Amino acid sequence: MSEFPTRLEVEDLQHNLRKVRDRLVRTDQADELRAELDQLHPADAAYLLEALPLEERLLVWGLVKAEREGEILLELSDAVRESLIATMDSKELVAATETLEADEIADLAPDLPEAVVQDVIRALPHEERVLLRAALSYDEGTVGALMDFDQVAVRKDVTLEAATRYLRALDELPAHTDQLFVVDRGGKLQGVLPLARLIVSDLERMVGDVMAPGSVKLHPEDRAEDAAQTFERYDLVSAPVVDLITGSLVGRVTVNAVMDYIREKSAETQLAEAGLSREEDVFAPVWNSFRNRWAWLAVNLITAFIASRVIGAFEGSIEKLVALAALMPIVAGIGGNSGNQTITMIVRALALGQIQSAYWTKLVIKELGVATLNGVIWGGLLGLATYVLYGSVALGAVMALAMLLNLLLAAGMGVAIPYLRARLGRDPAVGSSVLITACTDSGGFFIFLGLATLFLL
Amino acid sequence: MSEFPTRLEVEDLQHNLRKVRDRLVRTDQADELRAELDQLHPADAAYLLEALPLEERLLVWGLVKAEREGEILLELSDAVRESLIATMDSKELVAATETLEADEIADLAPDLPEAVVQDVIRALPHEERVLLRAALSYDEGTVGALMDFDQVAVRKDVTLEAATRYLRALDELPAHTDQLFVVDRGGKLQGVLPLARLIVSDLERMVGDVMAPGSVKLHPEDRAEDAAQTFERYDLVSAPVVDLITGSLVGRVTVNAVMDYIREKSAETQLAEAGLSREEDVFAPVWNSFRNRWAWLAVNLITAFIASRVIGAFEGSIEKLVALAALMPIVAGIGGNSGNQTITMIVRALALGQIQSAYWTKLVIKELGVATLNGVIWGGLLGLATYVLYGSVALGAVMALAMLLNLLLAAGMGVAIPYLRARLGRDPAVGSSVLITACTDSGGFFIFLGLATLFLL
Repeated sequence: MSEFPTRLEVEDLQHNLRKVRDRLVRTDQADELRAELDQLHPADAAYLLEALPLEERLLVWGLVKAEREGEILLELSDAVRESLIATMDSKELVAATETLEADEIADLAPDLPEAVVQDVIRALPHEERVLLRAALSYDEGTVGALMDFDQVAVRKDVTLEAATRYLRALDELPAHTDQLFVVDRGGKLQGVLPLARLIVSDLERMVGDVMAPGSVKLHPEDRAEDAAQTFERYDLVSAPVVDLITGSLVGRVTVNAVMDYIREKSAETQLAEAGLSREEDVFAPVWNSFRNRWAWLAVNLITAFIASRVIGAFEGSIEKLVALAALMPIVAGIGGNSGNQTITMIVRALALGQIQSAYWTKLVIKELGVATLNGVIWGGLLGLATYVLYGSVALGAVMALAMLLNLLLAAGMGVAIPYLRARLGRDPAVGSSVLITACTDSGGFFIFLGLATLFLL
Repeated sequence: MSEFPTRLEVEDLQHNLRKVRDRLVRTDQADELRAELDQLHPADAAYLLEALPLEERLLVWGLVKAEREGEILLELSDAVRESLIATMDSKELVAATETLEADEIADLAPDLPEAVVQDVIRALPHEERVLLRAALSYDEGTVGALMDFDQVAVRKDVTLEAATRYLRALDELPAHTDQLFVVDRGGKLQGVLPLARLIVSDLERMVGDVMAPGSVKLHPEDRAEDAAQTFERYDLVSAPVVDLITGSLVGRVTVNAVMDYIREKSAETQLAEAGLSREEDVFAPVWNSFRNRWAWLAVNLITAFIASRVIGAFEGSIEKLVALAALMPIVAGIGGNSGNQTITMIVRALALGQIQSAYWTKLVIKELGVATLNGVIWGGLLGLATYVLYGSVALGAVMALAMLLNLLLAAGMGVAIPYLRARLGRDPAVGSSVLITACTDSGGFFIFLGLATLFLL
């Protein structure tokens, strides 16, 4: 944490980037560029690589020292990491990976060829190998996957002086060591000893007397999301992870792992809502981008096709009154927008655990209330506009009524879709926007054209 | 950080919630409930309040001790906080606020009546008052707004032993004190002394010799987003904030403030994309929800109306070939979906600083490539489906061509909109989805109906 430049800002990095580009043009400066890359923090080097198009990225990657490749790969986004790993042979990959700690290797493992992972496992000392196997065994999205093994443990029955001596022997404490974990002879967690408390306490006292006994504990099987909420709620820097059955200390989670997890989750949600399967390398080849995007476009195509068939069923009515064709997308569009508002709010509240089963009815009533208000106001306005444009009171009335009904449909489905998905144990967020839009499109066309057919023709 | 329950999970809190509800029914248990509330961590109490409908929320709020109200208000979401503040009179508000620290009061201030803020300022001791005025002066979204004043500073020219003695005199170190800030006599920041280093170093040595001199520094005027990226990139727990001109230490930012900021920003983005102006209390009255949602619905109404007029201009064509009415929403819909994919990816890459001005052309070419591929594949497929459904090769060809052109339009606008907004110094994210959908809707209708009119009629 010590030797960074004094003021780290996006502009500095962009300045670096420009320098790198200039250097790449004059290849005789490769040595100088290499020296500069050596000085960059791994996260900054990763940032630089992400912001370069593929060709230049590979040129720069070729200048990175072998022993730094591992720590830089760790900091890269998945898509860019893959683009680099694809260019490395097994030997290089093993060399890059070996420099990392067990929990870091486990983070990289899903992107590495199986043979490389096996080679790395074989090359590790026994103790590290046990940790790596443990780290590899945890599913993504669990505390086990967030965990590292850099915890510093001290025994309950020693003096603070002895504990301090032990720490000095370690020379340097691992990053994010804000507290020591206090264990008994069997390795069972007894409590925690914050460094801040260690420093201000009398060194003659026993660890067991100074420690905080009832600290937050996590288990490897806990959901990462719950751990993240715990960190946020109680403003933690680190938390011990203990085995659910034996209660022994197996690792720790630190706030930086939690913060990465939160950013990643929020990026995933944002991308999924726009119909991207995963984070995309901005400079990905066309074909990779296509693969990342086609699935949601295909789903959208199907829902659009269904909506189109609903319209097709009313072709006779449209033929007689062509104004319907121009008006129907408004009804569908506003319904979709309003439904998305409802569903987004409810999905968020569900994720935060704010909706208890007893209150669903209350929610439905509220959402139908908002929809009615919207329907009366916007429906009335549009009905009026329709009357002014087409000179037909009846058409205006059908427009207004269709708006109101489609907004009520949107509100109902906006509550029902996440409710049912949560009930069925699915993630209420995934594809919620596609589902609600499908309902309000087909539903909106059906309601509007149906009402028109009934009352106008 | 000491006396929490051992296993903190959503289920436990939901269990608490059920208990609270049971208690509320039998009001003779109010005392018991009050005792239980006193034991809850402020964040847990806030969670409980957020998950209760308004009536019950107010009942529970009435049972909270006056001296705890401030810390609980701080933890609440804006919407729920407002719902409670609205029920409190000035005296209560002043009492609740006075218990907080200057930076916390500044966080609450925007939600408090001006008179209350003035009363609180007057009631504070001089030193706190100066800090509060400083904290109030920083704009939202700056480092100044994230900052607190709990930094522990030590002088460079003392021994570690003296520094340790000073810390002991403080009794307890502020939360998230992972390092001491080293200053000279004038208060100018010289470096940082991590506690982990203090503990393992010889107490005879001087602070100036042990400290890390070149640490990360923030300025109150820096953008909060840049500070957040710095924390993530370098895995910081705390960072000193220094005056840009004098270089003197004015405060610090801690990782928990950064984490709250990240969550809040990501929530805002998510809500804005769905067309909600801000976070909504799930149990908000209908009228409040309406106000939170109407603006985007109105914008959507206008864009839908424009698209409708585009269709209106082709009513003659639709009258002659009614199949156009059923097919046109497909062209518009797929274009919108594809445009949203492009714009989301680019807005994210811009926010992460991954796009340099030299590479925009590369990006446009790539996106047009993806659009062409999508257009050929999906356009071809839909053209075929159209031919099968309506038996017209010409109609199928128009459908396929319109799809391709609208996808190219979507790709072009998907790059152009964020590019122009960034160029003009605006946030490229705000309303991007609405803008692109407006283009692809009106554009899609125009392209499809225009081609049909040209070639089919």
